[in-house]
Amino acid sequence: MPGRPRPGEFELIRELFAPLAADEPGALGLLDDAALIAPRPGRELVTAIDTIVEGVHFLPADPPFDIARKLLRVNLSDLAAMGARPRAYLLGLAIPDAVDFDWLRHFSRGLASDQLRFGISLAGGDTTATTGPICLSLTAIGEIEPGRSPLRSNAAAGEHVYVSGTVGDAALGLRALRGEELGLPAGEREAAIARYRLPEPRLDLGMALPASAAVDVSDGLIADIGHICAASGLGARIEAGRVPLSGAARSALGSGAVEIVDLLTGGDDYELVFTAPADRSDAIREAAARARVPVARIGTMTEGEGVSVFDPANARIAIDRAGYRHF
Amino acid sequence: MPGRPRPGEFELIRELFAPLAADEPGALGLLDDAALIAPRPGRELVTAIDTIVEGVHFLPADPPFDIARKLLRVNLSDLAAMGARPRAYLLGLAIPDAVDFDWLRHFSRGLASDQLRFGISLAGGDTTATTGPICLSLTAIGEIEPGRSPLRSNAAAGEHVYVSGTVGDAALGLRALRGEELGLPAGEREAAIARYRLPEPRLDLGMALPASAAVDVSDGLIADIGHICAASGLGARIEAGRVPLSGAARSALGSGAVEIVDLLTGGDDYELVFTAPADRSDAIREAAARARVPVARIGTMTEGEGVSVFDPANARIAIDRAGYRHF
Repeated sequence: MPGRPRPGEFELIRELFAPLAADEPGALGLLDDAALIAPRPGRELVTAIDTIVEGVHFLPADPPFDIARKLLRVNLSDLAAMGARPRAYLLGLAIPDAVDFDWLRHFSRGLASDQLRFGISLAGGDTTATTGPICLSLTAIGEIEPGRSPLRSNAAAGEHVYVSGTVGDAALGLRALRGEELGLPAGEREAAIARYRLPEPRLDLGMALPASAAVDVSDGLIADIGHICAASGLGARIEAGRVPLSGAARSALGSGAVEIVDLLTGGDDYELVFTAPADRSDAIREAAARARVPVARIGTMTEGEGVSVFDPANARIAIDRAGYRHF
Repeated sequence: MPGRPRPGEFELIRELFAPLAADEPGALGLLDDAALIAPRPGRELVTAIDTIVEGVHFLPADPPFDIARKLLRVNLSDLAAMGARPRAYLLGLAIPDAVDFDWLRHFSRGLASDQLRFGISLAGGDTTATTGPICLSLTAIGEIEPGRSPLRSNAAAGEHVYVSGTVGDAALGLRALRGEELGLPAGEREAAIARYRLPEPRLDLGMALPASAAVDVSDGLIADIGHICAASGLGARIEAGRVPLSGAARSALGSGAVEIVDLLTGGDDYELVFTAPADRSDAIREAAARARVPVARIGTMTEGEGVSVFDPANARIAIDRAGYRHF
């Protein structure tokens, strides 16, 4: 049954999107050509863009409420890795005629929900037609004190390597959605799917951490540590046995459905992986406790290049793929 | 004949896109999670997003060099309407597998060319796969002194209404591309098509103008003046005979292929329409001369609401459509 027909662009903006911009004066009510964003005194702006496409990053039947939150959260995860506080975002929607008002209404409600959760407001946008799949682009804008971002290039040899939360769950969730038999109890299967569907950006942790270098886990743990290595001109030694795993991941390992390499190279976990000097380990623990996010030390930055992974018997694990790539 | 196969995302970034970010230190070489943008002292940032889609805003056979420039320029036109100076941009590319390296190379060269022309640098981006048409999103970031933007809401009754350049050419160009017989000499036909294919953002004019309110002509002259009216709670009286027309537009009017209403409501001209008090008319003329862009007074802001259009005999012209809408 088709829903309410979609009104024109201006009505859509007024009815669904302008309310999302009410708390950001620089959005000018979405009535102008652009938004005005003045960082607070002593802050600079941090900006990141991400695009997600129907059939690639989400499925046509996925709830629009969750698609909106995923779109926002993958960007917020980039801000988290920079240690930034969310401020505003711009939204670019390319949607086919078949997308009806109800879909857009639920999409806008997903945005509204996460705006409250993460303290961010819509500042501008653009809606256009497409003859293809839904294509959604979002630019997130955050604020930070100059010099405070844990840049990927800022790691030093000897620093500890940490990761938040657990790793590999999103990859498990994607396999479960594709119908693979993973030998998981129903609850663990659902938890893994939820991790794939809806990232949890580690914003509080990112703002609290005294990290030297950080990146969010989107390409896969090993690939993303590799980004820090490449940018810092260093290598890393990772202890696979120290990498924190969820109950679902341990079950899937136990049943033989996956290998540890699948978990270490699976993408879309959106945890933070970061480095810090050894003498900051207490400060790291305190920051993690304040942010209420578990953090585990998984290795050490080294001279050289590339990421070497070792099992608990100190045997090197071959990593035959750098991580998930979107193409 | 297929071109060079497309390398992976990281190679593409290194080879084609990182060079476009060389002049913006905050881009961090496109190696990090986000870009750091500190406005210069005494400035705030102006941001706008636009999305263009293959088959909707450009044709599959269009040269990627021009597609890149169109994508950048439609955004720069928004900055022009805010009176801002271009600073940096973020790029979101959703591209199907069939797009080869050569296409992307020419696309990146188009960006490089316009970066030099308009003084802007790439600061960040995201490349992803799509199963549908090419979907390109760009967020432009400019700088301006706080309070200097000619907001749409800032017009006053009695102010003069001006427009830059000529109006209606892009709509003519689109008709010509669709094969309509417009009775145009070849040179005028080509000029109209060029206006449709490649906007000329009025950045120098936007920065120079002492305007109260401004908007760029993207939905159509009358619709865009209507945006100023709605935001300012006013009406406007427009003299159709004063609206500046190109040779092509005059030819098409003369041959009866189009009516004046078609030109006044055609979209995508990317001229600036703006208002200013009568006592600033000399300053407007001087700013236009400095920017080397012709500017014509076409009407007056009034009490009331809506845009009323009159012919040279002072008879009201019925406008039966508010302007081009993308959906």
